[in-house]
Amino acid sequence: VDLGGTLVRAGAFDLQGKLLAQREAPIEAARGPEAGLERIEALIVGLLHFVSSTKTFRLSLLRGIGIGCSGPVDPDKGLINNPHTLPTWENVPVVAWMQDRFAVPVRLENDADVAALGEYWLGAGKNVRRLYAITVGTGIGAALVIDGQIYRGLGGSHPDGGHQVIDPSGPPCYCGAHGCWESLASGSAIARMAREAVDARDVELADSKHKPVQAGSLHRNIDPSRIDAQWVAEAAIKGDALAMQVMERAAYYFSLGVVNVATLFVPEVIVLSGGVMKSAALFIPAIEAAMLRHNVMVPAAKVRILPAQLGHLAGLYGAAYTVVQS
Amino acid sequence: VDLGGTLVRAGAFDLQGKLLAQREAPIEAARGPEAGLERIEALIVGLLHFVSSTKTFRLSLLRGIGIGCSGPVDPDKGLINNPHTLPTWENVPVVAWMQDRFAVPVRLENDADVAALGEYWLGAGKNVRRLYAITVGTGIGAALVIDGQIYRGLGGSHPDGGHQVIDPSGPPCYCGAHGCWESLASGSAIARMAREAVDARDVELADSKHKPVQAGSLHRNIDPSRIDAQWVAEAAIKGDALAMQVMERAAYYFSLGVVNVATLFVPEVIVLSGGVMKSAALFIPAIEAAMLRHNVMVPAAKVRILPAQLGHLAGLYGAAYTVVQS
Repeated sequence: VDLGGTLVRAGAFDLQGKLLAQREAPIEAARGPEAGLERIEALIVGLLHFVSSTKTFRLSLLRGIGIGCSGPVDPDKGLINNPHTLPTWENVPVVAWMQDRFAVPVRLENDADVAALGEYWLGAGKNVRRLYAITVGTGIGAALVIDGQIYRGLGGSHPDGGHQVIDPSGPPCYCGAHGCWESLASGSAIARMAREAVDARDVELADSKHKPVQAGSLHRNIDPSRIDAQWVAEAAIKGDALAMQVMERAAYYFSLGVVNVATLFVPEVIVLSGGVMKSAALFIPAIEAAMLRHNVMVPAAKVRILPAQLGHLAGLYGAAYTVVQS
Repeated sequence: VDLGGTLVRAGAFDLQGKLLAQREAPIEAARGPEAGLERIEALIVGLLHFVSSTKTFRLSLLRGIGIGCSGPVDPDKGLINNPHTLPTWENVPVVAWMQDRFAVPVRLENDADVAALGEYWLGAGKNVRRLYAITVGTGIGAALVIDGQIYRGLGGSHPDGGHQVIDPSGPPCYCGAHGCWESLASGSAIARMAREAVDARDVELADSKHKPVQAGSLHRNIDPSRIDAQWVAEAAIKGDALAMQVMERAAYYFSLGVVNVATLFVPEVIVLSGGVMKSAALFIPAIEAAMLRHNVMVPAAKVRILPAQLGHLAGLYGAAYTVVQS
């Protein structure tokens, strides 16, 4: 099960990792955890019916249930505690609920962790000893897998590489830092930088009418409130000067975070995924240049930077893997 | 054996970690690796004589030899390759040499790694699951121990947390980065900042004779070339305004690196050691404030920040532990 703020996705896997069937539904978190848990249960029951080869429903086919959920989650206690993304979901005992319904082992993990596990099992980092996975969407998620095991912090906590400080003169983040990675290189950071640049440029244009208009300055045709990271990336690809500057700035900051991951972990593979990484082509040159520049103390240039192979299904695969590996 | 750029120290330990005897000698690296290896051999032979309870020399007392050495070292191949700190020492097969002489298992590790292992075995991080050790001297060394094992990067490499980027507008470092941790918060960074401040201030005083002299401005009585981190720390403790500013700045940057370690690893314990950490009292308030500020995404406030307990002997203990644990 891959449970996000909007959708819940469930898949039936065999033990070799073949995805036999998948279904999804809106989670409608605000209707409350109980309604949400029933919906997840219904998805699983539906999948079990589908994969039962005879007309008989066969619960015995079910070996276990793995759940990835946007954090904070408590893997040890089996609790989802994420009212930020799933309004009303505080200390929801999803593991106990599913164990009660299906009488099989149930595992709960952070979504970044299951996505990393998925890429380790059957994706871009297949069987490497150390895999660091970075997901760039609205925020930046990160996870480390060592020898197929999720690296955890004290008390089973999920370290949060997306909030490492990259530039203390940067903007404040809800995490408590100024200039953390997420505040400088995530999708929302890209959108914010573009909005700020458009606003600043409007002022500048008003002050100085004689400035030459830059080629492809699409930005003046858009309502700033409608700017998102995808719009910026598309405008940059079309050659919009302002969008290109914003993407270059984001790529620069993104590359510093990648360099820090290489310096602090030296993993064989860093896997990149998430909506913003659909524009990875705009980021890769900056990352590669940075890795060569920071190759003195650690063999950073040997760290392979790879796009995720399982795309939006990485979390589903990884959730399944938590069952297979246990 | 703890092999540094100036001194080599050797200790005889029993299997419980009791230090039975220790000796040290200048390494005089520039005289060549062979002379250095013979000196280390002589130290070990001397210790064996000392701990042999009868008059008979008993090689059978020796279970193994652990060696910590300032990096780069190659633990897998048993090579020291550090001509920076040990001039002429390129690809020195210290493990093969000692195995040939003593016919026991020999282990070679990076000095930051053995210091961390020592603190894990018998020091401040005794038996914690995740221990991150930070040594602040001329540079900043760092090491992670998970369940008593050194965390290694690809190809057995030693990650180098001391060179994580903290502020990209900072000074250039030999590591390839601008504003890495070592360039902002190490002993040499403190000395550099103080020298720059004294230089700038001298100019300022010359320009404006009417400026009131600040209380305790000891800095005007020193030749800038003689300023080192210890001098700055002492001047700060005595109340010198400029020295206090420099130490505050270093403490601020140091705290950002500690916050990043907490964010990226969430270890139970972070152990601080090294010459600069003799002035830890000047750093701790900044670190504690930063940990509270960055307690949103990870339980940073639960990470214990502790001074090393084994002091300058941590490396010796840790080197011994590599033998005990194998």
